[in-house]
Amino acid sequence: MKRSFVREILEATSADTISFAGGLPDESLFPIVKIQKAAAKVLSNNATLQYSVSGGITSLRQKIADYYCSLGVETAAENILITTGAQQALDLISRAYFRGGVSVESPAYLGALGSFVANGCPLHGVPLDEGGVDAQLFANSFEKTKRAYLMCDFQNPTGKSYSLKRRHEIAQTAVKQGGIVVEDGAYMELFFDERLPIMATLAPSNVLHVGSFSKILAPGLRLGWIRGEEELLKPILALKERADLHTSTLSQMIADEFWGDGGFDGHLEDIRDIYVTKAKYLSKQLCLKIPEFVFEEPRGGMFIYGSFPHGTDTRALAYACLAEGAVFVPGGEFYEGSPVNNDARFNFTHTSFEQMERGVDIIARVYGGEF
Amino acid sequence: MKRSFVREILEATSADTISFAGGLPDESLFPIVKIQKAAAKVLSNNATLQYSVSGGITSLRQKIADYYCSLGVETAAENILITTGAQQALDLISRAYFRGGVSVESPAYLGALGSFVANGCPLHGVPLDEGGVDAQLFANSFEKTKRAYLMCDFQNPTGKSYSLKRRHEIAQTAVKQGGIVVEDGAYMELFFDERLPIMATLAPSNVLHVGSFSKILAPGLRLGWIRGEEELLKPILALKERADLHTSTLSQMIADEFWGDGGFDGHLEDIRDIYVTKAKYLSKQLCLKIPEFVFEEPRGGMFIYGSFPHGTDTRALAYACLAEGAVFVPGGEFYEGSPVNNDARFNFTHTSFEQMERGVDIIARVYGGEF
Repeated sequence: MKRSFVREILEATSADTISFAGGLPDESLFPIVKIQKAAAKVLSNNATLQYSVSGGITSLRQKIADYYCSLGVETAAENILITTGAQQALDLISRAYFRGGVSVESPAYLGALGSFVANGCPLHGVPLDEGGVDAQLFANSFEKTKRAYLMCDFQNPTGKSYSLKRRHEIAQTAVKQGGIVVEDGAYMELFFDERLPIMATLAPSNVLHVGSFSKILAPGLRLGWIRGEEELLKPILALKERADLHTSTLSQMIADEFWGDGGFDGHLEDIRDIYVTKAKYLSKQLCLKIPEFVFEEPRGGMFIYGSFPHGTDTRALAYACLAEGAVFVPGGEFYEGSPVNNDARFNFTHTSFEQMERGVDIIARVYGGEF
Repeated sequence: MKRSFVREILEATSADTISFAGGLPDESLFPIVKIQKAAAKVLSNNATLQYSVSGGITSLRQKIADYYCSLGVETAAENILITTGAQQALDLISRAYFRGGVSVESPAYLGALGSFVANGCPLHGVPLDEGGVDAQLFANSFEKTKRAYLMCDFQNPTGKSYSLKRRHEIAQTAVKQGGIVVEDGAYMELFFDERLPIMATLAPSNVLHVGSFSKILAPGLRLGWIRGEEELLKPILALKERADLHTSTLSQMIADEFWGDGGFDGHLEDIRDIYVTKAKYLSKQLCLKIPEFVFEEPRGGMFIYGSFPHGTDTRALAYACLAEGAVFVPGGEFYEGSPVNNDARFNFTHTSFEQMERGVDIIARVYGGEF
């Protein structure tokens, strides 16, 4: 099995490499003092270090359930299953539900595609346009698969969000055809101007909504979840138990304590403020120094996605840049079979302003020298 | 998919239930103060909360490698893959290697059997006798499967260890036939009198040795590992990445800091001292109050395994006891297909002395009343 470009790069880069590759959050935004405090508190209780139940600790499930209620979709703790990151959610869901095939965005999050392929799930790509997956092509595909994996908010890799109209169309298709749409909400809280309704609020019985603490709290905790009808969660829970018994009790207790102690108050606003500034800064660097790279300024999420001139082999460019100390992900990685194309994805959250300048300088120089 | 009896029981029991069912460590033995200290220290570094590499952090891998060197088998950090508990190690290994079938002990650890079955791996049971799996029957089975899953130290559920002779016979078979033996060492450090050489030291190239921090430090961290040839680890690493990207950075850093700060010095001796006392105490209670239950006093591990008189339906007995406030695992659970039999497994590490008394009283009463 091929390993993912991003994970391989993460291991191949030295401390000096300027990486626009991964979806790493800005470490300086980790609420480290509050997490220290939460850890100290929960570690006064021995149960924090003991085995716990496979579905996740009730208190955290309840908080996540309340969050969905606040978004307008009635949710109980029983509708939440805690996972070891959103990645595990996707791995388990695909093992439970996608073996007969799944409709996926093209391009799509490569960690999801990798997991689905590893689990023997046939992929049915549906092209994205400005408003999301094409509604008619999606309906045709979903009619066959009855299963879909979509990222409606700040899609990885394109950074684009589905239009309100498209969300309603997809939801209607799911309800009418009676299948399961897995909605990956990893980036949903990282909006710069507006929040659109998630699919889980439009078709609650047909959607398994996947959430993550990785982008809003800290990825090192490996904490994610699935929201869905209890009946739909049952086979996933059985697989979860076989996969790792349960998610780190310590991580769950820390997140629960942090949340309950008001840790998220203002925290998401802080993240959004920094990220919008960073998105603008990297956009400006790219516009100025590589005007041939065409993209739209992001309105949320973690990525700038765009195109070099037709015919540019961005995989060759990425490897040439890596040798010079900077790296991004070539667009072809986000398609089944990893074809070569002229697209590229740049993460704007992990690098400092100064690294953005130097990194784009390197890429501009390598690109200009025709790598 | 059927969920495991133990996990279901864990969720069905109230705080008042006296449970001899799970393999839960004694919480009072968690080195909570040292873990608090380790957590405080590693949480002063933002990298503790960031994504990390899929194979595990180098420092912890190196410590585990050194541990194997101390046991007599040359091991480098590259030979160690960190997993989200030993359970994930078994899940990933079975997905990578057991799809064509695997020779397993009969009876065997039900979390392993459950995972293998969920992953579509055909099971080939080899009966256990006093010295381990029957050597000739194992050789016959392994010739067909070329894959095996064994627990040579304080086997779950029987609590018995393989004889030295049997270890050599199995190792020779593995080397001669050229297959892979997965050795689950979860309980190996919980010996009361002697340490026998693990299979990984007898046939290092043919063994994937699975280790766990759950029984020697704290299960809530969800930390385990696999030791093996780098080539054998590669397909497992690719699956690990798809399964959950990597294991909790926080958990890894805490274990690494705890270990590096001398946290294990004396700690394992403390655990062994308490557990041998508890094993003796529960043995005595069972002998006195349920003389019909026949078993050998354990020499390590976490379990007493034995037999009620022929014809006793221990599953019915377990459910009847659960209704009265005490529970154990019926022996049939540890066989493929969960047949009814007259065996039972009792955990002796998690209950207090007083709970052991009350719990055995309940079971004796229910058993005596012919449930």
